Amino acid sequence: MREKKKTRGKELPLPLLANPVFLKRGLIHILDETELPFKVKFIKVKDIEEGAWAIRTMKTRAFGQVLLFYYCMIVICQRLRKEGEENLRKALREAGQTLEKTRPTFPFKSFRETIFQWLEEIEGEDIAQRLEARIYLFLEEMKAKRLTRVKKVAFCLDDRDTILTHCNVSGEMVLIGREARIQGKEVSFFVTETRPYFQGSRLTCWELKEEGFSVTLLADNAVAQAISQGLVDKVIVGSDRYTKEGDLVNKVGTYQIALVAKEFGVPFYGLVQPQENLPSSSLIPIEERDPQELLTLKGKKIYPEGVQGFYPAFDITPKALITKVFPL
Amino acid sequence: MREKKKTRGKELPLPLLANPVFLKRGLIHILDETELPFKVKFIKVKDIEEGAWAIRTMKTRAFGQVLLFYYCMIVICQRLRKEGEENLRKALREAGQTLEKTRPTFPFKSFRETIFQWLEEIEGEDIAQRLEARIYLFLEEMKAKRLTRVKKVAFCLDDRDTILTHCNVSGEMVLIGREARIQGKEVSFFVTETRPYFQGSRLTCWELKEEGFSVTLLADNAVAQAISQGLVDKVIVGSDRYTKEGDLVNKVGTYQIALVAKEFGVPFYGLVQPQENLPSSSLIPIEERDPQELLTLKGKKIYPEGVQGFYPAFDITPKALITKVFPL
Repeated sequence: MREKKKTRGKELPLPLLANPVFLKRGLIHILDETELPFKVKFIKVKDIEEGAWAIRTMKTRAFGQVLLFYYCMIVICQRLRKEGEENLRKALREAGQTLEKTRPTFPFKSFRETIFQWLEEIEGEDIAQRLEARIYLFLEEMKAKRLTRVKKVAFCLDDRDTILTHCNVSGEMVLIGREARIQGKEVSFFVTETRPYFQGSRLTCWELKEEGFSVTLLADNAVAQAISQGLVDKVIVGSDRYTKEGDLVNKVGTYQIALVAKEFGVPFYGLVQPQENLPSSSLIPIEERDPQELLTLKGKKIYPEGVQGFYPAFDITPKALITKVFPL
Repeated sequence: MREKKKTRGKELPLPLLANPVFLKRGLIHILDETELPFKVKFIKVKDIEEGAWAIRTMKTRAFGQVLLFYYCMIVICQRLRKEGEENLRKALREAGQTLEKTRPTFPFKSFRETIFQWLEEIEGEDIAQRLEARIYLFLEEMKAKRLTRVKKVAFCLDDRDTILTHCNVSGEMVLIGREARIQGKEVSFFVTETRPYFQGSRLTCWELKEEGFSVTLLADNAVAQAISQGLVDKVIVGSDRYTKEGDLVNKVGTYQIALVAKEFGVPFYGLVQPQENLPSSSLIPIEERDPQELLTLKGKKIYPEGVQGFYPAFDITPKALITKVFPL
């Protein structure tokens, strides 16, 4: 197996989408995912307002918005090193609140609470530097945990499996495929388009193809036909939230894929966030984005005048449909 | 109610999509559904080959391809009036075979069998003229049956119902909405995009909006979220085939909508073709169209190089998920 050899013995660089946000010379660099795969372009962000804009406009999403949140906090720590703790707390709180308003479904609020919990635990002088170091440590741990999770998922795959995935999990699907190769298994992929943003077509298909995997694109409405024909061995999706009840909030469309998988006994795996202490998943607000994103394509109208659009960004897949979760 | 008044007392013309194919001065005129809603354009077809091309390229579909088949047969009858019965039979058989090859899922073969059954029943001279008259009678009956069916469906609706539909049923949804108004009920619509051809956005949204109905477009992957939020009262879809087992073959995506509807107890209605005497729906070939139709949009690539596409045009919704069917 050519590919197996290729990945053995040397470390491949991380897929581009697995590290979509980083800090360089005081500026946050963000991979503009809306331009992929046609352009690989980084946006440079200098303050919280610009960071919030990048999230709102989906320049970055998924793992990228997690990184962006924490890098925004790091930038504040760096800029307020000489200020007192009160000013630092105020700036962190305000920045957190600004970012929380961008996308209501994503748990930015709990990220802010984590920051303030770390602040409580820090003792002595140089609070800002210590907090910065704590955040860096957390980011390193999180990246390492993703790599560990990839190994666990790959262990559950069989040679020649075809995996159906939806939307994009920030490079993790590439890493799962790579790890499967290291374990001597070659897997292929079915990827949904993921309307209206085409994250499946533009991001997932692209990054998997770049890595030499067999990739088949299908319309979001062809999932039942593909699964009923026995073309799919496992479904793997990411998640934006994972509740105490075991429900998974992910890109809209996940729920109906899970229903079809259940109907045909195809295992449904979720790459999930840490479980949240929410009494019910119904308390999670589901973001409804501007229907213009549905009604136009690259600025061009693809629908008749006067028609309304309904564009929920997420849906909630209940625990009963989930075979196994892989938490971070 | 303004709309109720508007439709009472005078006959509205048929919606454009309800009569998409007709014969005029020996040429078959076909409404080019691929250009809607931006252009209302009719293609003029002079022979069977051109008719087959119009079906293959989806210039016409659904009810249009039924009409086109029979108008092709009428054109043959008109041209071979002076020929013997053997030549007529040969021409009809060959034309039928040519049309059968266009889209394998659609039951063109049974249409041809119907034509030959009528031929058996015809006695006396002027076979071609008599067959032509028989076909015209059949088409008139079919159009009348559609109008009767519309009334039956409308009776099952309640005032303020929101109907979710998928793809396009050739004007019948407009007629159902009109009939509901006559019955004193105002209904609104949720319409799926229906990738990759956007028949939902381009045809159904357009014709319903033209008629003054409230129409909301949603991505194919947002159906579960819409239904789980209680936004849909009934699902109504068309069908290309309806089997002895009670399964319904329709535009890909129908199956997963039916699964979601079942999950939430939302009635799922099918506007079906006459039931076929097939032992199993698994014997129906499911057309797989050229994946280029999925991978490009108006000729522009929307996916990375080297990615394959899976584009089944239909799926099979099992009887267990169907609340009620309305046969022609």
